[in-house]
Amino acid sequence: MIMDIQHYLQDKRQFINDYLPSFLAEKSIPGLLKDSMLYSLQAGGKRLRPILTLAVLDAFGKRAEVGLEAACALEMVHTYSLIHDDLPCMDDDDYRRGKPTNHKAFGEAIAILAGDALLTFSFQVIAGSHVYSPEQKVSLLSILSEASGAEGMVAGQAVDMESENQELTLEELQSIHERKTGRLLEASVLFGAVLADADTEDFARLKAFSRHLGIAFQIQDDILDVTGDSELLGKQAGSDENNFKSTYPKLLTLDGAKAELAHHIKLAKENLREAKVHPVILEGITDYIVSRNH
Amino acid sequence: MIMDIQHYLQDKRQFINDYLPSFLAEKSIPGLLKDSMLYSLQAGGKRLRPILTLAVLDAFGKRAEVGLEAACALEMVHTYSLIHDDLPCMDDDDYRRGKPTNHKAFGEAIAILAGDALLTFSFQVIAGSHVYSPEQKVSLLSILSEASGAEGMVAGQAVDMESENQELTLEELQSIHERKTGRLLEASVLFGAVLADADTEDFARLKAFSRHLGIAFQIQDDILDVTGDSELLGKQAGSDENNFKSTYPKLLTLDGAKAELAHHIKLAKENLREAKVHPVILEGITDYIVSRNH
Repeated sequence: MIMDIQHYLQDKRQFINDYLPSFLAEKSIPGLLKDSMLYSLQAGGKRLRPILTLAVLDAFGKRAEVGLEAACALEMVHTYSLIHDDLPCMDDDDYRRGKPTNHKAFGEAIAILAGDALLTFSFQVIAGSHVYSPEQKVSLLSILSEASGAEGMVAGQAVDMESENQELTLEELQSIHERKTGRLLEASVLFGAVLADADTEDFARLKAFSRHLGIAFQIQDDILDVTGDSELLGKQAGSDENNFKSTYPKLLTLDGAKAELAHHIKLAKENLREAKVHPVILEGITDYIVSRNH
Repeated sequence: MIMDIQHYLQDKRQFINDYLPSFLAEKSIPGLLKDSMLYSLQAGGKRLRPILTLAVLDAFGKRAEVGLEAACALEMVHTYSLIHDDLPCMDDDDYRRGKPTNHKAFGEAIAILAGDALLTFSFQVIAGSHVYSPEQKVSLLSILSEASGAEGMVAGQAVDMESENQELTLEELQSIHERKTGRLLEASVLFGAVLADADTEDFARLKAFSRHLGIAFQIQDDILDVTGDSELLGKQAGSDENNFKSTYPKLLTLDGAKAELAHHIKLAKENLREAKVHPVILEGITDYIVSRNH
């Protein structure tokens, strides 16, 4: 099954990679700004968020293609957040996925503006879709703005920075991750549910599924930082340790973190199986999250 | 009439000032981030954008209160753009409206995040409104994202920065202003038209009205920089001159800029009078733009 899932992920990733730049193609965006937006949009990555949206549609037996615009909007928001997080006054990273970060390539001003523009564009893509109903658009835009804003992703980054070099409790660590990465992963799953016209019960189950999936994703990230290969990670393994960052392995030991990971994977799958969907692909993605090496 | 308009503007400004912070009141936003958002939201200012939305509703004989959420969303976008524009890597301003700029008060990281959060929140407020229909929301969100994104306001700032210290033609100058400030002023007028269910003809006339109003606004800004009082402006008069910035007075002489201003005011009013609205208040706002001293 892992091999099939690899194939599925590769297939969908290619689909996303092909379409992402096309949204900007005919827009009259100033040259440098457009180059900067495309540079980060095309820097690769797992495309986990858009793939989740497409996979949920598949799980409901709907055409995954329907989710394309919404899925690409999610990747734009994710990309904007990486550009801003990498800035010198934030995490001050010079490399991302083995390439110079956006501000290293284009300067800080253009990097900030490219992030602003990608965030704004994500809303434009959804609002301007010719595929979704006004009601679906409003649901998607509510979910996206709540997940990525002052109570969601931006809050996570703000608290993460405030608490740098501080010892965190497991609860505090979880709360940061829930907002910094969890909410947008949740939104990715809920996007699929909205576009599949899921009923209230399935919506709630998929929300619970995505919450545990998000926590599992972050635990595996922290584990990889301890055990992973720098080249595959595209950043220095052990960098969290060197940055005095609170991580799951540090708070729970490596074995403890692996047990916590298994616990959340189990809960994710339980919630998934209770929903009226074909669970196979989403289960496969869940397993992939544990087994990935970057 | 000027006195009446002053009263109208003051009244609406108070209305906006009272409501703007309330949107954040019950949100669970991390303390410093929330303080930073409120700091800039409550820093005062003319509130011209939200007032335009309310005034257009008045002009159509509708209740201005209907426009409140949309109007506040516009002011959030405007506020975010000021925070990011003031950053050291952009315009590097230490003061705004006589107070330290956001990054001077909260540091660069929180300033960037507060801007990101305000931008995101503007979409959330509209998408989550209990007043607007899904169709109206989608129209508002399309207008707002297009006006403020990579083809609009962000594009204007990018080109403005690229062309710093360069001699611009009048056409280039106009094109920068049209995107940097004009598009959001246009959106403010169109917001009112959407919420008043304006027909296609009135929509087009108000769009033309707002375009000329936006240009007039910018010309007056440039004139004030030459002739104005630093204390009233909240910044050093003559700062454009000192920054080698291209301005209307520099390209056209002061008298030429005043003539150009009168020309656009005339065109704005002509378009306004062709729309099926009560033009008095919007005419008054147009006159205010020429007569304002800050």
